[in-house]
Amino acid sequence: METSKFSKFSAELLGTMVLVLMGCGSAVIAGANGTTGVGLLGISFAFGLSVVAMAYAIGHISGCHINPAISIAMVIAGRMKAGEAAYYIVAQILGGIIGAGVLLMIASGKPEYSLAVNGLGQNGFDALSPQHYSLHAGLIAEVIFTFIFLLVIFGATSTKNINGGFAGLAIGLSLVLIHIVGIPVTGVSVNPARSIGPALLVGGEALGQVWAFIIAPLVGAALSAVVWKYLLEKN
Amino acid sequence: METSKFSKFSAELLGTMVLVLMGCGSAVIAGANGTTGVGLLGISFAFGLSVVAMAYAIGHISGCHINPAISIAMVIAGRMKAGEAAYYIVAQILGGIIGAGVLLMIASGKPEYSLAVNGLGQNGFDALSPQHYSLHAGLIAEVIFTFIFLLVIFGATSTKNINGGFAGLAIGLSLVLIHIVGIPVTGVSVNPARSIGPALLVGGEALGQVWAFIIAPLVGAALSAVVWKYLLEKN
Amino acid sequence: METSKFSKFSAELLGTMVLVLMGCGSAVIAGANGTTGVGLLGISFAFGLSVVAMAYAIGHISGCHINPAISIAMVIAGRMKAGEAAYYIVAQILGGIIGAGVLLMIASGKPEYSLAVNGLGQNGFDALSPQHYSLHAGLIAEVIFTFIFLLVIFGATSTKNINGGFAGLAIGLSLVLIHIVGIPVTGVSVNPARSIGPALLVGGEALGQVWAFIIAPLVGAALSAVVWKYLLEKN
Amino acid sequence: METSKFSKFSAELLGTMVLVLMGCGSAVIAGANGTTGVGLLGISFAFGLSVVAMAYAIGHISGCHINPAISIAMVIAGRMKAGEAAYYIVAQILGGIIGAGVLLMIASGKPEYSLAVNGLGQNGFDALSPQHYSLHAGLIAEVIFTFIFLLVIFGATSTKNINGGFAGLAIGLSLVLIHIVGIPVTGVSVNPARSIGPALLVGGEALGQVWAFIIAPLVGAALSAVVWKYLLEKN
Repeated sequence: METSKFSKFSAELLGTMVLVLMGCGSAVIAGANGTTGVGLLGISFAFGLSVVAMAYAIGHISGCHINPAISIAMVIAGRMKAGEAAYYIVAQILGGIIGAGVLLMIASGKPEYSLAVNGLGQNGFDALSPQHYSLHAGLIAEVIFTFIFLLVIFGATSTKNINGGFAGLAIGLSLVLIHIVGIPVTGVSVNPARSIGPALLVGGEALGQVWAFIIAPLVGAALSAVVWKYLLEKN
Repeated sequence: METSKFSKFSAELLGTMVLVLMGCGSAVIAGANGTTGVGLLGISFAFGLSVVAMAYAIGHISGCHINPAISIAMVIAGRMKAGEAAYYIVAQILGGIIGAGVLLMIASGKPEYSLAVNGLGQNGFDALSPQHYSLHAGLIAEVIFTFIFLLVIFGATSTKNINGGFAGLAIGLSLVLIHIVGIPVTGVSVNPARSIGPALLVGGEALGQVWAFIIAPLVGAALSAVVWKYLLEKN
Repeated sequence: METSKFSKFSAELLGTMVLVLMGCGSAVIAGANGTTGVGLLGISFAFGLSVVAMAYAIGHISGCHINPAISIAMVIAGRMKAGEAAYYIVAQILGGIIGAGVLLMIASGKPEYSLAVNGLGQNGFDALSPQHYSLHAGLIAEVIFTFIFLLVIFGATSTKNINGGFAGLAIGLSLVLIHIVGIPVTGVSVNPARSIGPALLVGGEALGQVWAFIIAPLVGAALSAVVWKYLLEKN
Repeated sequence: METSKFSKFSAELLGTMVLVLMGCGSAVIAGANGTTGVGLLGISFAFGLSVVAMAYAIGHISGCHINPAISIAMVIAGRMKAGEAAYYIVAQILGGIIGAGVLLMIASGKPEYSLAVNGLGQNGFDALSPQHYSLHAGLIAEVIFTFIFLLVIFGATSTKNINGGFAGLAIGLSLVLIHIVGIPVTGVSVNPARSIGPALLVGGEALGQVWAFIIAPLVGAALSAVVWKYLLEKN
């Protein structure tokens, strides 16, 4: 019996909730300082291991996209129908918002926490970039990082790849990699649902910049779908 | 020939001993400071890699639960009989106490060590939380973290999941993830046996708070069993 | 249908681009300081996880060499034709240069970045070694590290090894290992294409030293091919 | 055709050389300080990833023991003949000495390096323990850590374990785990060959303490063989 639409929707919602709660949570709760907190490396592992964990938990139910850029790239590559992608994306965005909400609920339990000061791990450029990278650099980085992320996804899940069992590990570890490099630039999105949730709750300037983290990942993902189809696995 | 009850009991006892000795040991012996010790990230890997190591060591003997919350969730999900869970839980609690005892024996070999000051990696909230998170935040965090942990366990070990060999890795890495995020909140339990051992030996307030780390993981695990059965793999 | 030359060329170019952009990028963008940046351990994971990610992404297309020393060692070991190695190497060097260029483009988006001061993660010895290791030590280290790296590659991809699916993981993690040890010596090359890209864009003394990071990896790789063939898998 | 004695000897020698060069090298070259070096976590990964790398490189040739305690435990458990273990152990000790020698050669290329001051990552207790742990604590720790290490080895390589491909990963990661916890106590041996090499070259007090790192790992390994055979896989 085919997995039901409802199960897939639930899986994508829960998976994206976990990604946002745990990825952004590592930054907000455990901290980017490597001496007193988990450091940039710890935050990188949090985002990537969220994907590893969810890939082996819900991969057999929904494919574990938990990222609208992936669902759209799958449509472009002809691996998914647009209608199915649509409700996947609704689930992902909802999950991202819920994840940010749960994170706020836990973080507020620390006496010193303030939403305005500590935020929810939202992405940003210029003044909101962790090290003040420009919008231009942020857009290039997000496009290229998402392009690389999708290359790994297409390759690791290709029917021509006999090591398909490793896909969840390879894809999650590639997200660790992308965060190791990119946190100082934008905090790393490569996933509109991961950016929308925290931005909605933080509001203000963070919400005003969220368009960049919707557009750039989608451009990178589309580019990757085309390169994959016409350069790498065309034969 | 069926694995004997005695072998399963021994495996669960030894496995939980390893989890408590090595997980809590990383905090007590090697330290949460990232410059001079292994840092929060190192402690996170210690807990998670204990599960990875034991999963591939004793998984084929007892299933490597080494956590009463897992055994109870398996009963709720109909994957285990209550009678078997009962002696698993006895083994796990015994193993956790022995692990804490061995840790105390090694730690005492350092001239500056003091049980009262340095403890045994026990969990706590309010004044005993590493960063003074409230009981309320601690309970929410433990319920949700255990919920996520069990989702990974149900999914990675599902008979519908063709990548079952990766379960030990995925489950262990999800415990790394949960510790990366949650150590500042409660020190992370998600496992009553991991909490009971150190609390018993440390005594005092730590023991007085241990109820929270029995109840919250059990609630999270039960919730996960229900969500798994009725939302995700219902079909 | 046989994978086309064009697909293989594209795969090697893109893979080497990712290795240089992400490996060197971790040092340039995220930084070698373990408190404020990702630290030496983070940089080590960036190089190694680039290989893990690419191995599972393009391994089934081109074998994912993304390193001229590997292609040449495969020729010596009789696993690849010289003509095929030649265009692999062209793709790898091109990819390394493009990777360094993209890195420069992103890094320049930080107001304080300066190519002359911050560089592009280029390799070096004597005054250009991170901790002023001599040329002599640098050459020995690069020869031995490449020798070890190739041992892992030959062994993990041997037809006598029944765990071939793990090759990408084992090889990538061995590159993490080599960087954990060797960054203070030369910044770690073990890959001429990884060294040529950044050196070309940085120019000056860095370019003047690049010969060492072409010759030493090739010597280590050739040595490994001989040891593998005549000592380890000869029977 | 059976793998020759000569190939097995070469594999064990090279594997142990890699373990000592890279494990001890991470401490000597890259450093235990988490801000300026790779930190205790980085050193832990170096030892463990050496085993992961070698397991998939030479596991199909010699089984990748690279540790006399493992070879002796295999004899006790009836999985290996004493005569074969004897020449394995010779190869391992030789490899450990060569590894320490190569490390000295590279480390000496740093102007500030001094063998007397910086050492070669040798193990020690009391005044030579990184944090002055007593001999008593050191012996207990080494016995228990080796006991745990061998449990993982027996379990992960058991013919009853259907996930045998993961053995190299699980065993290597369990060595990461043991180092995360134990470096402050003795520097972690659990392997006489890893201790003998550096101690011989450093000499003096370090060599005078090396007996502890021969006896304790052997006791722990023997204990593990007995527990495995009579408690865990007896049925």
